[in-house]
Amino acid sequence: MAEKEKTKEYYMSLALKEALKARDMDEVPVGAVVVKDGKVIARAHNLREKNQQANAHAEMLAIQKASRKLGTWCLDECDLYVTLEPCMMCAGAIVLSRIRNLYYGTDDPKAGAIENIIQIRTIKRLNHHPQIESGILREPCSEILTAFFREKRKKPKRKREDFRKNDE
Amino acid sequence: MAEKEKTKEYYMSLALKEALKARDMDEVPVGAVVVKDGKVIARAHNLREKNQQANAHAEMLAIQKASRKLGTWCLDECDLYVTLEPCMMCAGAIVLSRIRNLYYGTDDPKAGAIENIIQIRTIKRLNHHPQIESGILREPCSEILTAFFREKRKKPKRKREDFRKNDE
Repeated sequence: MAEKEKTKEYYMSLALKEALKARDMDEVPVGAVVVKDGKVIARAHNLREKNQQANAHAEMLAIQKASRKLGTWCLDECDLYVTLEPCMMCAGAIVLSRIRNLYYGTDDPKAGAIENIIQIRTIKRLNHHPQIESGILREPCSEILTAFFREKRKKPKRKREDFRKNDE
Repeated sequence: MAEKEKTKEYYMSLALKEALKARDMDEVPVGAVVVKDGKVIARAHNLREKNQQANAHAEMLAIQKASRKLGTWCLDECDLYVTLEPCMMCAGAIVLSRIRNLYYGTDDPKAGAIENIIQIRTIKRLNHHPQIESGILREPCSEILTAFFREKRKKPKRKREDFRKNDE
């Protein structure tokens, strides 16, 4: 019997698991997975603070891992699932790596580059446009971020500057 | 006697040297350096083909190296010199890493995100805006790219698909 096809919600739940790992490390909780032919080939979560790298976003790390695994920068048969709407940098990386389908959980009104601060589908000169679907497991993808920042606000000011919501 | 202050052209000439290294590896010739307190703290060039990573642009690699050197993602006392106008991904990384001044050599009408396909200064919601100056050593920064693609067009088609100008 053929294996039952996995749903988008299934893959997003794996991205959410990654976001939980980030949260447990006191990183802004965003997670991502890359899927090819139904198989998860890369998983990653935000590691900005641990790595002290501004570009260590979940999507960037997942794309890097996927390319390492496949031995090519061109991920045109791959889909990316990420819990939060990608920022400008990550949207650019998604275009450059030719990701086929982008699925994301919740919007980022402050930094999202898909529907918010810019709308990549309106930039006609980009040489690749992924298919895009948002709102996959929107509630839990949003709630994990809300809870994280609620908790941060309770903590002493000393730590707060490290977790500016705008950065994710 | 105090050391003579270096000019922007001097730092861009180092970025150009990086671009030449890329060219010699058959990579699209773009180079970048990061400068802090007058010292070059990171140098990098495009390595997309060698690394098989879509995000191995000169700017991204230079920012990563600078953060590794300084031990922080926050490069707000650093200036970035890059031979070509940054793409959307690199513009995003420049914003996220809080680069203070961005100097670039030549425009990229097909993918440049500073003045061309998008104009980052018009995106008011970005939480950081670097100072930007373009046209530093414009001629040699442009010429190295023109010569590279002219050479590519002479070579057999087989190789051409690996060097789509739009990607840089």
